[in-house]
Amino acid sequence: MMISRTAQRHSTIAEIIQRARGEGIPVEFVDEQVIRTHSVTPAHQGVIAYTAAKDYVALEDLIEKTLAKREPALYCVIDGIEDPQNLGAILRTADASGFHGIIIRTRRAVGLTPVVAKVSAGAIEYVPVARVANITQALEALKKAGVWVVGIDMGGKQDYTKVDYRGHIALVVGGEGKGVSDLVKKRCDILARIPMSGKIGSLNASVAAALVMYEAYRQRAKF
Amino acid sequence: MMISRTAQRHSTIAEIIQRARGEGIPVEFVDEQVIRTHSVTPAHQGVIAYTAAKDYVALEDLIEKTLAKREPALYCVIDGIEDPQNLGAILRTADASGFHGIIIRTRRAVGLTPVVAKVSAGAIEYVPVARVANITQALEALKKAGVWVVGIDMGGKQDYTKVDYRGHIALVVGGEGKGVSDLVKKRCDILARIPMSGKIGSLNASVAAALVMYEAYRQRAKF
Repeated sequence: MMISRTAQRHSTIAEIIQRARGEGIPVEFVDEQVIRTHSVTPAHQGVIAYTAAKDYVALEDLIEKTLAKREPALYCVIDGIEDPQNLGAILRTADASGFHGIIIRTRRAVGLTPVVAKVSAGAIEYVPVARVANITQALEALKKAGVWVVGIDMGGKQDYTKVDYRGHIALVVGGEGKGVSDLVKKRCDILARIPMSGKIGSLNASVAAALVMYEAYRQRAKF
Repeated sequence: MMISRTAQRHSTIAEIIQRARGEGIPVEFVDEQVIRTHSVTPAHQGVIAYTAAKDYVALEDLIEKTLAKREPALYCVIDGIEDPQNLGAILRTADASGFHGIIIRTRRAVGLTPVVAKVSAGAIEYVPVARVANITQALEALKKAGVWVVGIDMGGKQDYTKVDYRGHIALVVGGEGKGVSDLVKKRCDILARIPMSGKIGSLNASVAAALVMYEAYRQRAKF
């Protein structure tokens, strides 16, 4: 649940906060601007509670089902994307490029909200999404299942087109502006870099994810 | 200028429409929802007038300046992108991948608005944008300057990674949901296709553009 900092003083909102905490629902205080971005209506009154537009799958089930397919697994692990436009676009790319599933985190990240469903153009119905409290633990579980973890990072040593994505692979992409967090980076088997010229030196998060996802798809589909 | 269909009946709005027309400013009537997407504030009252957050360049100047660089030109022609998130993301990708300029159209397309400037993360300052009334005429001008025109289309015969982008190139990408229009397609020297598996069969517009832009960049930078 997200609450606008300016709205949190109202007594009605205080009661909502108290009840959410009683139910163990995480509450975040954010700028009014953030609420506006996530709301499907301008009449939001400073509070947004998330219900999933689609059910999440359990990480263990996702891994088990993929291995049963007897083909190299392909996952995208998202370390903190907050913009529903970006998550929706990534779901669409995942559908188009043969990914078996997406793994997102609970905190400071957008989930499967109605806006994400809309932006995904229907892909939310076909791409399984697991939501985990702890990304580093999820990576450990993936590694135990024989998955190789490729982090996308500006400081990576290898160009992303030079990495071999034909085995069991989990790509790890970071959130807007922040990239992959340091703790998560340490769990990656390799860090790959997207070359960039120009003055800005960073790409939109869903664009960066798509470039690497499509390179993995290209290598597997051999187009 | 965009006017919400529900707002157009008000007398104040009628005056705005009349004065805009007197000045030769194009007026479009759209759903309230469209106004909300484009507005930086929820207090929009049903009218949005665009002023450029950055000046446009003239197409002839863009062509002349690029040729003076004595390197293969690389342009992205956008045939009707309406979402400022997409144009902003494309500007960012253009900066990162060494594009010499973007060409957009006047009608039913977003221009260099404040939202686009923000989403571009500063790229708007570095990537020249030409705005033209007629995309097919712009393509004719580019062809006269020796530029090869590559359209991105689902019905394209060649995979986008199989096209040679090392000469003077203009990529043509379509708008959200509609793709490149038929008239514009006819002016393309080749139509390239982005392979897709999955159920949805289309990508976010800025993602599709980025995949091809980066393939062109990869071939030139040889990474």
